[in-house]
Amino acid sequence: MQRKIIPDIVTGQTINSAKVDTTVMDAAKKMASANIAAITVEDDDGKLIGIITERDITQRVVAKGLNAETTSVLDVMTKNPDTLSPNDSAGDALELMQSRNYRHLPVTEDGKCVAMVSVRDLYKAAKEQLEENIRETEAFVFGDRYGA
Amino acid sequence: MQRKIIPDIVTGQTINSAKVDTTVMDAAKKMASANIAAITVEDDDGKLIGIITERDITQRVVAKGLNAETTSVLDVMTKNPDTLSPNDSAGDALELMQSRNYRHLPVTEDGKCVAMVSVRDLYKAAKEQLEENIRETEAFVFGDRYGA
Repeated sequence: MQRKIIPDIVTGQTINSAKVDTTVMDAAKKMASANIAAITVEDDDGKLIGIITERDITQRVVAKGLNAETTSVLDVMTKNPDTLSPNDSAGDALELMQSRNYRHLPVTEDGKCVAMVSVRDLYKAAKEQLEENIRETEAFVFGDRYGA
Repeated sequence: MQRKIIPDIVTGQTINSAKVDTTVMDAAKKMASANIAAITVEDDDGKLIGIITERDITQRVVAKGLNAETTSVLDVMTKNPDTLSPNDSAGDALELMQSRNYRHLPVTEDGKCVAMVSVRDLYKAAKEQLEENIRETEAFVFGDRYGA
């Protein structure tokens, strides 16, 4: 069966997000305390407006010599990121991530972020799906379901 | 057939490494220009002594308010990281990465780093291996190799 982003890949996640007035240093603290690689940025209505990752912090702040304590997440985030819907399939999501070289994608409902999916979550699901296919093929071949 | 780290998973990589006197900012620049998430740190004899990742920069430098321009990679790298050998299997490497939650592992020969493997490289290989298994099982079942 085709797996959907919610609930098959992720479910019951705590969403870690930054506000428009969050500094890069505070975003890094949030990422560090949750041990995650990316957080979303939302406006005052809670709508998703961007995403900021460890890569953005490394490449757009540290490598550029910016001061993380005074730089706003608004200046280094990726604006209006691609998103998934809860009903998207795991396969479609993985294809999108591979083709654009993303490692994380926010899942939104009515413009608000309800989950974050990583390429690792998706590979894991894809691997499980393939293993299930193998088990089913073998079960068919060796007949343990058909009394052969 | 069991896939080996070199040459089945990675081959002909350019190794990006920092020296003992590299600052975090310069390490970030190297990572940014190669668009990679981790680089190795080597001593004056070229031996691997550590690894520094985007996560280390985010969590150990930016979140802590350290100055990347004056902080040495020696102070924030992971010392004496686990490594792979070129002859290790992809499956063993993936298991090690999953159990310890690594995203990158250096591959060493005589103490020197000869490649860097990411969990993404390994998932990709594992997926291809499973797909190959399915094709082989199907070929056996539906007999295109045995003239059934």
